[in-house]
Amino acid sequence: MQVELASVGTELLLGQIVDTNAAYLAGKLSELGITVYHKTTVGDNAERLAAALRISLGRSDVVLATGGLGPTDDDITAAAVAEVMGVGLVEDEATTERIRSFARFRGVKLLDSLLKQALVPKGAEVIPNPVGTAPGFIISRESKTVITLPGVPTEMRAMAEESVFPYLAQRLGEGDAGVILSRVLRIAGMGESQAEAEISDLIGQQTNPTIAPLAKTHEVFLRLTARAPGRTAAERLIAPVEAEIRQRLGNHVYGADEESLELVVGRMLEAAALTLAVAESCTGGLIGHRITGVPGSSRYFLCSVTAYSNESKVRLLGLSEEILRQHGAVSAPAAAAMAEGVRKAVHADIGMSVTGIAGPDGGKAAKPVGLVYLGLADADETVTEEIRLRGDRAMIKERAAQMALYRLYRTLRTRQAAGVPA
Amino acid sequence: MQVELASVGTELLLGQIVDTNAAYLAGKLSELGITVYHKTTVGDNAERLAAALRISLGRSDVVLATGGLGPTDDDITAAAVAEVMGVGLVEDEATTERIRSFARFRGVKLLDSLLKQALVPKGAEVIPNPVGTAPGFIISRESKTVITLPGVPTEMRAMAEESVFPYLAQRLGEGDAGVILSRVLRIAGMGESQAEAEISDLIGQQTNPTIAPLAKTHEVFLRLTARAPGRTAAERLIAPVEAEIRQRLGNHVYGADEESLELVVGRMLEAAALTLAVAESCTGGLIGHRITGVPGSSRYFLCSVTAYSNESKVRLLGLSEEILRQHGAVSAPAAAAMAEGVRKAVHADIGMSVTGIAGPDGGKAAKPVGLVYLGLADADETVTEEIRLRGDRAMIKERAAQMALYRLYRTLRTRQAAGVPA
Repeated sequence: MQVELASVGTELLLGQIVDTNAAYLAGKLSELGITVYHKTTVGDNAERLAAALRISLGRSDVVLATGGLGPTDDDITAAAVAEVMGVGLVEDEATTERIRSFARFRGVKLLDSLLKQALVPKGAEVIPNPVGTAPGFIISRESKTVITLPGVPTEMRAMAEESVFPYLAQRLGEGDAGVILSRVLRIAGMGESQAEAEISDLIGQQTNPTIAPLAKTHEVFLRLTARAPGRTAAERLIAPVEAEIRQRLGNHVYGADEESLELVVGRMLEAAALTLAVAESCTGGLIGHRITGVPGSSRYFLCSVTAYSNESKVRLLGLSEEILRQHGAVSAPAAAAMAEGVRKAVHADIGMSVTGIAGPDGGKAAKPVGLVYLGLADADETVTEEIRLRGDRAMIKERAAQMALYRLYRTLRTRQAAGVPA
Repeated sequence: MQVELASVGTELLLGQIVDTNAAYLAGKLSELGITVYHKTTVGDNAERLAAALRISLGRSDVVLATGGLGPTDDDITAAAVAEVMGVGLVEDEATTERIRSFARFRGVKLLDSLLKQALVPKGAEVIPNPVGTAPGFIISRESKTVITLPGVPTEMRAMAEESVFPYLAQRLGEGDAGVILSRVLRIAGMGESQAEAEISDLIGQQTNPTIAPLAKTHEVFLRLTARAPGRTAAERLIAPVEAEIRQRLGNHVYGADEESLELVVGRMLEAAALTLAVAESCTGGLIGHRITGVPGSSRYFLCSVTAYSNESKVRLLGLSEEILRQHGAVSAPAAAAMAEGVRKAVHADIGMSVTGIAGPDGGKAAKPVGLVYLGLADADETVTEEIRLRGDRAMIKERAAQMALYRLYRTLRTRQAAGVPA
């Protein structure tokens, strides 16, 4: 069964709101095992909506439309669907009664516009709205079906969950598509093309699960999507492919699904009973913000010092005037001294530092925008690394924070592998 | 001229990401006076994309497509467009050269997949990508045009602003449809219902411009949208309504359009030649991250110390053991001492602090989750404020950071009004 989505509303085409309804419905349908191949957005215009619905019904079995069911003149979905289905509009008496009692309860005047919402295409099955006044409906002709829901997200979701998903699941029947299960492997420290090159043969061969790379600003997602009659069977299809990818990409695969890098690093710090202190410069506090986004991070995170001025690097982190004079604040020696300084200042097990040039100003030929030094210090040693990043100020901040967290993650993995005691 | 949008990406149809690109482009096009009547979303499938492009070109003059231009096998937009336009793919040498130098600069291997991005439909005009490697292009046949842009939002926006909007504005020519102009007034320190109550008569009366309130996590936007034959006429419609709203809401209107609170505060600090130091706890570095997101912030921002552990509050900010024992780290005396401590530590003009309980754990009856203290210290005095916030951990961090910046903004406004010398 092919289902496609139609979003109705001029405000979507003016860019005044983002279409979260479509993302929600698409996600839920794919969990039901229904593949959505198309989504169309049209404004509050009955003629264009009817034309779009005809195109959609020409290639799909079911069109699930949201929006345009309210009380105002520009709510034209019911009329457009009726026209496409070749029927007239009729009053649904149960809906009229619901609107009347709603108006009494709220003490509002029973306007004609409110009652207009009770008009549905003849032959349609009404979907009650438990939250508001506009009902949805399901109407079929020959093998084609249109389902409508209001555009208000709370109403749409309640009605989809109570009525639409059960209806589609039932239509889908037993021996049908089954389940689509997705698993995201999260990758850091390598780009999209590099990741794909390592597994290009797998991507080429695999049809179930499929493997799709997706580049984010500072990391790469590999999405494995399996179709199977049930969830367990889908998991069994994904498991060996995931194992093969993890084998090839090693520690670059730091987590899966909702596991952010700061969550993974936090778990490792806590398991090893290690505390962390951070010295930031170009990242401006973003590393601290990410680490403290994880509930319970106070158990291992002691502080982050964003020392933007040279004086604050000296006074808060103990950086020497000599390093600043000889090497500058953006240098490997400065990164080393910052990591050591913040570690000692609060008696942390690990000190981490980032210093660099986020731009757009402040770059020079010898030290261009995007030049970043990372430092990592523990009781035994201090390591620094030079990296070069591209992008605007926001991207350089994001990528530097990610690289610093990734460097920490690699170090903690190495300690784990070596069995270093806490 | 009719323009429509096409969003390419299976992840959009699986509901894994929300299509913010389409909302952004639709908003910008409407500001240019271009009405968008359709938006279509298709997956990473060349055949379905080509079919959708044919439908779109049948009813519109220009299709603006985003996504599917990356280096991987499922990036199929260039091939699909070439097919629809009846041409082959050719290498764009300037793009190949850009990709080569990118690979050299980053020290990554020059993979075939990277170079694949230099293939564009024959006869297309290439749109350079200032941020990443995938170029966009513009191709016309007879009176129909397809424009492609990558799906990564930062790349897409940079290229749209530099190349696509100027191209469309030029094609639009003079005497066309007119202009829809929007102006957003940004409001802090009051909720949506409060803001709406102050101007409900204006909202009721106004039809051009319309006034639409929009609640964000930590602030309220009021969007004024005017239609007029040209930009100047639209600005003249908006100006008196904006003036009336500013009069009623006073300093709660801190900025307009893209002016974030951190940008406005930064300008005021710089104009008054004041330096700022921040002591954070529950906000975890978010205040520093926001302040340093503004280019040139190093001219007034000295440091932010996120002191999460009690020991780091004592050692980095000079908080006394006595305050911690008597009042606890989340208290007005602690907020005062943190603001004074960070100010003195780096010789700043103003010290600002936030301490609170972000949850989900750590709340008690006397000090519940969402309890936050703000502190502000200068050479003359220290002021603290207790606030109570609602929401999950991420929302409390965001709202506490916003309230702290808003408190600073109000103080700077008062100084300005009193004519305090720098």
